[in-house]
Formats: sequence, C-alpha cells, structure tokens
Amino acid sequence: MDQHIAPVPLDKASRLLNHGPTVLVSARHAGMDNVMAAAWACALDYAPPKLTVVLDKIAKTRTLIEQSGTFVIQVPTVAQLKLTYQVGHCSLTDDPNKLQHCGVGLFSIADHDLPFVSGCSAWLACKLMRESHNQQTYDLFIGEIVGAWADTRVFANGHWNFEAAAPAWRSLHYIAGGHFYAIGEAMNAVKEREKGDQEKTK
Amino acid sequence: MDQHIAPVPLDKASRLLNHGPTVLVSARHAGMDNVMAAAWACALDYAPPKLTVVLDKIAKTRTLIEQSGTFVIQVPTVAQLKLTYQVGHCSLTDDPNKLQHCGVGLFSIADHDLPFVSGCSAWLACKLMRESHNQQTYDLFIGEIVGAWADTRVFANGHWNFEAAAPAWRSLHYIAGGHFYAIGEAMNAVKEREKGDQEKTK
Repeated sequence: MDQHIAPVPLDKASRLLNHGPTVLVSARHAGMDNVMAAAWACALDYAPPKLTVVLDKIAKTRTLIEQSGTFVIQVPTVAQLKLTYQVGHCSLTDDPNKLQHCGVGLFSIADHDLPFVSGCSAWLACKLMRESHNQQTYDLFIGEIVGAWADTRVFANGHWNFEAAAPAWRSLHYIAGGHFYAIGEAMNAVKEREKGDQEKTK
Repeated sequence: MDQHIAPVPLDKASRLLNHGPTVLVSARHAGMDNVMAAAWACALDYAPPKLTVVLDKIAKTRTLIEQSGTFVIQVPTVAQLKLTYQVGHCSLTDDPNKLQHCGVGLFSIADHDLPFVSGCSAWLACKLMRESHNQQTYDLFIGEIVGAWADTRVFANGHWNFEAAAPAWRSLHYIAGGHFYAIGEAMNAVKEREKGDQEKTK
C-alpha cells in the first residue's frame, strides 16, 4: 500500500462522499476483477456508516457484487478523468482486457480481498446489505462501509484539502456526454468564532 | 414565476442532480411549509426519472412529506450559502418563523401545490413512492420526478453552464461543520470529434 494512504475513522467515512463525487465501483469474485464508474452513489448513514449506489443490470461489476457480497467505492481524481470515463463506457463482457486497456492499476489492502484502484483519493470497502426488492426494482444497492482510507495528500485529519492540494487531486462530478466538473472553491457558511459559540450552546 | 425559469424535459431531469450538489428539500401540508438542507440526495433513474433523499426522523420536513406525499428538491447556489446552512441547522419545531429568519422566499408553479424556494438554480417536483421499509429502516425516501425547471442563466438546452455564469450561480457541495465546496472547472473526457465518432458506431 502506498505510503500516503492512511485509514479514515469509520465515523468520518461519509465525508469522503458527502460532496457528491462520481465514484469508481470495483469488485472481485472467483478470480475475476472489474471496475466501473457510477455518478449515482451517495452516503446513507453515519453509524454504522452506509452508502447507496445505483448499478444497472447490464453491469458486469453488479454481478460480481451480487456473487461476492462485497465491493469498493473509490473517489477518482482529475488526473483519472479519461480512466473514469472509459471504465464507464467499456464492458468487460466485450473486452476481457478492459482494465488493462483503460489503464487501471489495482492494489491490495490487508484483510480485504478486494480490488482497490490505484491513484484515487479515497477508498471505502463495503459489505453488501442484501435488499432484494431495492436491487431488483430500483437497481439500488446498499453497502455498509467496513473500511475507509484516503490519500493524505488530499484528505487528512478528517478533512478534504482540495484548496491546498494540486488541482489534479480534485474530485470529478459527471454530468453527461463525457462532460464533468471538478470540485471547486472552498467556502465556509459560519465564521470560526460563530462555530465555536454554536458548539458551546448545543 | 421568474421570467428566467424554464421547464426542463423530464428525460434530462437527472442532470440537475448528477454532479452531486447539496440540495434544499421543501414540502407543504395543511397550510404548513418547511425547507431543510440535505447533502444526501441522488438521482436514481432516467425514465420515469426518480431520485433518493435521506431524511432524518427528527426533520419536520420529513413529516410533511409523509403526510402530503409530495416534495421539491432544489439546487441552491453559492449566493445562498448562509441560507443553505441555516435551514439545515434550525428547526421549525423550535422556531415557527424559521423560513423568515433564514431568509427563505417561496414561489408557486402552476399545477403544483408545493413551496418552491426562490433564487435556486433548479427545481424538481417529486411524488413520494412510498417504501415503508426503506423509510423506517434507512430514512431513505424515493421520489418520482414529475416536473423539472431550471434558471436559464445557469442551465439551458439540457446543460449546466457554470463556466459562463457568474460564480454566485455555482452549486454547493457540503462536507461538514459549515464547510462547503462550490462546483469548479469544466472538463471533457472526450474530444468533440471522438464523441461524434462514438455516437455513429454505437
């Protein structure tokens, strides 16, 4: 594991998704790995942390998740713009060398038999909470987050630091037709002093 | 209705949420209106268009939605940073004049008996698809989008145009503790020529 990757406490895991980035979904079953892109992923709970992700029935990664009951949600960066688009528009069914052709590198994290995508900013290892009605009717999958990690060059001490990191670390937010926005400027709704006052009077 | 607000075709409605903005949720029942903020809202389907939103059991807006079966999801702007934070941290239960104190203005759209928040960039009128298990177990609500509108100064012809609009029109993406990011730079994963080629060979 890269020296810059550090665990994120599970009670802070939702922050990795809170700003609504497009994510990469990866899964492994019976020696087969796959990675796809998903714009429709969202935090669902803090404790235990959970998330939702929408996975179309034609997606090979969905089948791997249904079989293995586990998956990874990871946050790709501006540096991975083409990779993110390509893994979302190329199928393992049509191209058995999809991952190689899309430039996807994988790495391992101890105690998790899952394919983690190299170069992302954050990773969430998830256990599928099987909800057959949601999966069949809405293509909606719920995962309990059982492990979280981030690259300390862009997320440290429970906070994203896009404003200080290089622009290539920014998250991607997909619209349609290959068109994305990167995350932008930081802004605070409360002054530091006011926030302190609020905490005190809670 | 403001002259700049135009309907968005329902098959393009998901684009209003695709980049993962923090939203305002509003609802009306028996003469009572309320508005709250939600970072956990997500597109769910294209046709008919659907979305998910997570609503805590303590939220008064949730009760109004359960009673009326309808709600609005709207996309606030950088100009509404304080308003967005305040409606998420103040309860109608504690302050009956919450909306006034938070600076929320409401407007109407014909044929929809719902409170639409003035000054947002996009609005999605939703019909609750009652799923008791999801609502009770996960605080997860599913809405079918039955009407969509956007301010043409920032979304027109099916496309966001954050790059050309004034910075105050950018969407907000909440992290925690009053800290947000605005949406940032536009980027294309495919050149226009390549996209044309892909469409042809589909």
